[in-house]
Amino acid sequence: MNPTTYWIWYPGDFSIHQGMLQNFAREERGMGWPAYWYIDDCNRNVKFSRTYNLDKPTEFKVYAHGTGYVDINGNKHRLGESLKCDPGRNVITIFVGNTTGLPCVYIDGTVIKSDNGWQASNFVSTFSAGNDPLFTKKDQDPNVIEYQKIKVQPARIQEINNGVLFDFGRAVNGSLRLKLHQSDKVTICYGESQTEALDVGMCYYKQDDVDEKSVIRRRAFRFVFIPNVKKNQVALIAIHEYVPKNNISEFKTDNQLINKIWDISTETLNLCSDVFFIDGIKRDRWIWAGDAYQANFINQYSFFNEDVDKRTLLALRGQNDIKQHMNTIVDYSMLWVIGVLNHYEMTGDTNFLKMVFPKMESMVQYFITQTNEKGFIYGRKNDWIFVDWSEIDKEGTVAAEQALLIEVYKTMITCGSVLDKPIGKYQVLHDQLLGNFIEYFWSSQKGAFIDSYESGKCHVTRHANIFAILFDLIDDDKKQSILNNVLLNDGILQITTPYFKFFEQDALCKMGHQDIVYKTIVNYWGGMLNNDAVTFWEEYDPTKSGKDMYAMYGDPYGKSLCHAWGASPIYLLGRYFVGLYPTRPGYREFNIEPNLSNFKKLHVVLPVKSGKVTVEKDGENLSVIATRDGGTLIVDNHKYALAANKELSVQLK
Amino acid sequence: MNPTTYWIWYPGDFSIHQGMLQNFAREERGMGWPAYWYIDDCNRNVKFSRTYNLDKPTEFKVYAHGTGYVDINGNKHRLGESLKCDPGRNVITIFVGNTTGLPCVYIDGTVIKSDNGWQASNFVSTFSAGNDPLFTKKDQDPNVIEYQKIKVQPARIQEINNGVLFDFGRAVNGSLRLKLHQSDKVTICYGESQTEALDVGMCYYKQDDVDEKSVIRRRAFRFVFIPNVKKNQVALIAIHEYVPKNNISEFKTDNQLINKIWDISTETLNLCSDVFFIDGIKRDRWIWAGDAYQANFINQYSFFNEDVDKRTLLALRGQNDIKQHMNTIVDYSMLWVIGVLNHYEMTGDTNFLKMVFPKMESMVQYFITQTNEKGFIYGRKNDWIFVDWSEIDKEGTVAAEQALLIEVYKTMITCGSVLDKPIGKYQVLHDQLLGNFIEYFWSSQKGAFIDSYESGKCHVTRHANIFAILFDLIDDDKKQSILNNVLLNDGILQITTPYFKFFEQDALCKMGHQDIVYKTIVNYWGGMLNNDAVTFWEEYDPTKSGKDMYAMYGDPYGKSLCHAWGASPIYLLGRYFVGLYPTRPGYREFNIEPNLSNFKKLHVVLPVKSGKVTVEKDGENLSVIATRDGGTLIVDNHKYALAANKELSVQLK
Repeated sequence: MNPTTYWIWYPGDFSIHQGMLQNFAREERGMGWPAYWYIDDCNRNVKFSRTYNLDKPTEFKVYAHGTGYVDINGNKHRLGESLKCDPGRNVITIFVGNTTGLPCVYIDGTVIKSDNGWQASNFVSTFSAGNDPLFTKKDQDPNVIEYQKIKVQPARIQEINNGVLFDFGRAVNGSLRLKLHQSDKVTICYGESQTEALDVGMCYYKQDDVDEKSVIRRRAFRFVFIPNVKKNQVALIAIHEYVPKNNISEFKTDNQLINKIWDISTETLNLCSDVFFIDGIKRDRWIWAGDAYQANFINQYSFFNEDVDKRTLLALRGQNDIKQHMNTIVDYSMLWVIGVLNHYEMTGDTNFLKMVFPKMESMVQYFITQTNEKGFIYGRKNDWIFVDWSEIDKEGTVAAEQALLIEVYKTMITCGSVLDKPIGKYQVLHDQLLGNFIEYFWSSQKGAFIDSYESGKCHVTRHANIFAILFDLIDDDKKQSILNNVLLNDGILQITTPYFKFFEQDALCKMGHQDIVYKTIVNYWGGMLNNDAVTFWEEYDPTKSGKDMYAMYGDPYGKSLCHAWGASPIYLLGRYFVGLYPTRPGYREFNIEPNLSNFKKLHVVLPVKSGKVTVEKDGENLSVIATRDGGTLIVDNHKYALAANKELSVQLK
Repeated sequence: MNPTTYWIWYPGDFSIHQGMLQNFAREERGMGWPAYWYIDDCNRNVKFSRTYNLDKPTEFKVYAHGTGYVDINGNKHRLGESLKCDPGRNVITIFVGNTTGLPCVYIDGTVIKSDNGWQASNFVSTFSAGNDPLFTKKDQDPNVIEYQKIKVQPARIQEINNGVLFDFGRAVNGSLRLKLHQSDKVTICYGESQTEALDVGMCYYKQDDVDEKSVIRRRAFRFVFIPNVKKNQVALIAIHEYVPKNNISEFKTDNQLINKIWDISTETLNLCSDVFFIDGIKRDRWIWAGDAYQANFINQYSFFNEDVDKRTLLALRGQNDIKQHMNTIVDYSMLWVIGVLNHYEMTGDTNFLKMVFPKMESMVQYFITQTNEKGFIYGRKNDWIFVDWSEIDKEGTVAAEQALLIEVYKTMITCGSVLDKPIGKYQVLHDQLLGNFIEYFWSSQKGAFIDSYESGKCHVTRHANIFAILFDLIDDDKKQSILNNVLLNDGILQITTPYFKFFEQDALCKMGHQDIVYKTIVNYWGGMLNNDAVTFWEEYDPTKSGKDMYAMYGDPYGKSLCHAWGASPIYLLGRYFVGLYPTRPGYREFNIEPNLSNFKKLHVVLPVKSGKVTVEKDGENLSVIATRDGGTLIVDNHKYALAANKELSVQLK
């Protein structure tokens, strides 16, 4: 049974407040490192209202976090007391101010209760109140995330470097319990790698003067090193903290390496998605729009957790007034808008779309104010035109940004249509921009999009070309041209970041090159496993070894060894090898178009909205069963309709 | 010596954060009562920056409330540690995030320290950092107001109604210390009046189940009643809490009633201005722009506390984005703008003006978006066109609002000129609006302004006419016409609120009718003294007696008995009887134009910016001494220049 009574708040506020806390959770070498952009918080002052027409008398109590009162038909009442309503029309308004956290209420009653149907106002705007399935009990406080805790015993304890090294055998995100058989306080040095933990001077996390009573902050680690002690003087247990999520996905094949890559990917995304999609559990722990955009593609093929994605989208967007681009990056703001479309196509959730659409509109209006007469978006002072860490010619307006903006307009047309909103304006902007994009940025000579037409350099990078394929901005001839002239052309500068590798792998698969992507999965992700990875890294460079493997951004341990986008094999395998994807929002219709030549035997379960799809392969025999209607199996250009819970088997050639 | 090292923050944030706390401090009968409008909070994430060019090495420490670090020339350092800078250019940036309160830093060093010169950014805008003279020591926390505390013994203890009544003989704003010689817990009933305290069922503040260990919340009261105890079972001390302010003003005359009215007025304003100008200490405890506007007129002639006014102006205005009118009231937003002009004319503080001017401009732009083609401002949905509780014809655009908007434009012209900002736009708007105001709202037939020209009713109330006099919107003939046809015309509905009485008294004095105002002071304020007032009330109606005196807004004890505007005799006496007023900002020039016929002997000291003026009268002899240059004494149309610290005596006729 779904709980029907929630803690409720001004919509978005829970995510915005928790997102603020998340973006302040970064720690480095004894320093706090707040995210370096403008950070919103929740509203401080909120009123909740609803009118009930009652047949008979009823009672209820209002619990709140904050100060305030309950108004029933113009009479004030105290919070926390039993209140009565007589039959007839009852107008109830609850006022709550919270000076430090989220103003929220829980209304406990049989008829009058905080289920769906309450309005929330910040005294400027009024919307349907927000809630979250994490908070359905009256003794909870939505200001405090309730982590489940499990004890993790060290897998290995070793005396080394005049101290003791604990290897917990897995990535832990949590605290430690210390037993000391000596009176001296100790120093705790953490590491995602053994190398880092042993580096007492430079490890990322360290806590000095620790005894059994010390409060030990939540941190991410696999190894802990305690210098200047012997094995018999110290004992450690790790307490891993997490927010439980369902995961019905399975990927079991005769290909043990791929199985392991799938499982480690699952572990990686799981760790990076407690409340929000964060980039990594050690560093930055921030909510980056680009990272989150990719994380949800992976989520769609594993946890299918709609709540984490909704929270992340709401936290990123913040309050209605836009102060700057998300994470200061223009392309990230655009990915956010497109990410809402992805969420809608994954979930078919029109309620969420309705709630977030005004924030999409104001975001897009913000883009429009920084477009020129050709419709091209440009960067202003303090705007970061990022695209990627690469040698992109960013003179004047930049191709990759235009590709994103075209997809943004498409998003507004699609989502606006769903909600019966006027979309004519977006159609005009879309058509103008798409036309000019091709006219100004397509080089027939290069058979590809160039970065900038204003510089005269006709420089080609992969980025805009990848977006053009992914967003279907061009016809098949141009896509093929890009494939040959850019993606498969070693003369074009390689993508060097895992962030954009994600998009490149996606585009290669989309163009039918699962063969290349399979090799990448085996070599790149398999390479990390060969280096003892228990989660996937922010970046892996097979040419590096030893301590060098862990350096990034000029920091010897700056690389995150548990990074959300490291889990991308889940998406690539689910989307392009198993070949599952929705063709109508919320999987009302969906295709399964397998490319499973790398697997002789296979048992895969993947989520779809309100259900799952199971694919089995045994030699030439392929069978598929889905728990809901709407599926189509596509094999060798044949389409087979799937009915709910009816297994379909076909012979592969 | 002025302290030169402050706690610093993003400008305005201290006031905005404390203002939020203030607007959530209201309590009624066991309920919190948050103010019913949108309430801003401070920024959560701030960076402070400054570049030093050093001759020699120096050290400093950074203390912060929040999480963050110190960046020196690109290298990160911990908060709270001793940091070194080498000679040469040193770029210092301090990052601080605070999840619940004000992000702020204190930089302790001989050269590098948090004096004036630091910039603060919320990652969107960068301004000079803010500070407050209340916070100059490194062990302070600007999130916590440090109240001074004094014990107040009961002036009278009395067994009554089967309980004990304590009369503290003065208004206390603070807590209680309880001694119980019995084991039962007691109930504490508070009252600004004895009647209220004895009304166990309906008193505004009450705390049940109190023993010696109970935390007793800060409340305002003069009386405490404890039912069901005997005198020997209970003892109480009140702990009055306050923020100390200087007050050099004195008003000592042979007229004992007026002396007492002055002193009680001083006490009243003092209580209502700890950190901000609030309306009253019992109810609402909120920062209302209209009340605050008037309070500063009184402040100018007593405490001359620039800080309270600055904090109040900043708290009212909030963050830069405007969500709604101040306290939701259109006229209050306009009074806020005019209040900044008043502050400038009182203090000559161009630094504050410079800091606040962008917020004035955005506020005025907000007004302009709600003006019609004639330049008239109108109310929109959710805007409250208040003016006053009175029978005002509010059909279409309303005269009083236009009068305020004209003065707003004048403010922008004056303040913009001081800062060398372009003012042409405001001049054009001013001239258009003033012309149309007279053309459409002046009725030659009535010899006065009418409320509304659109309704066709030609209804006259006092309000717009009073503003027209106070803001000098019209020539002397029209002013005289208003005096006769409105102010002195009993056929025109009387002002019924003390709020607008303030403006009316001001206008009457301005038109030379100190005689009428003197009678009002004696009758209205003297009447409250006859009713045992120790502070002046929100409202006084001589026709009411007994319990009825304390009722307001439908609440038997809804009337505030210590209300800031109750202190208005200070302004009226100082401005129009002593006759002191600045003629150039910050009293660079000022007049003293006495009307002291009601006093035979008089010794008055009044503040001016950076000094004071002393006026003595003894029979026909008047002598004046000012501690600064720029004064002019005006007696019987003769002007006498005053030199600093030189007494000037004249004979009165």
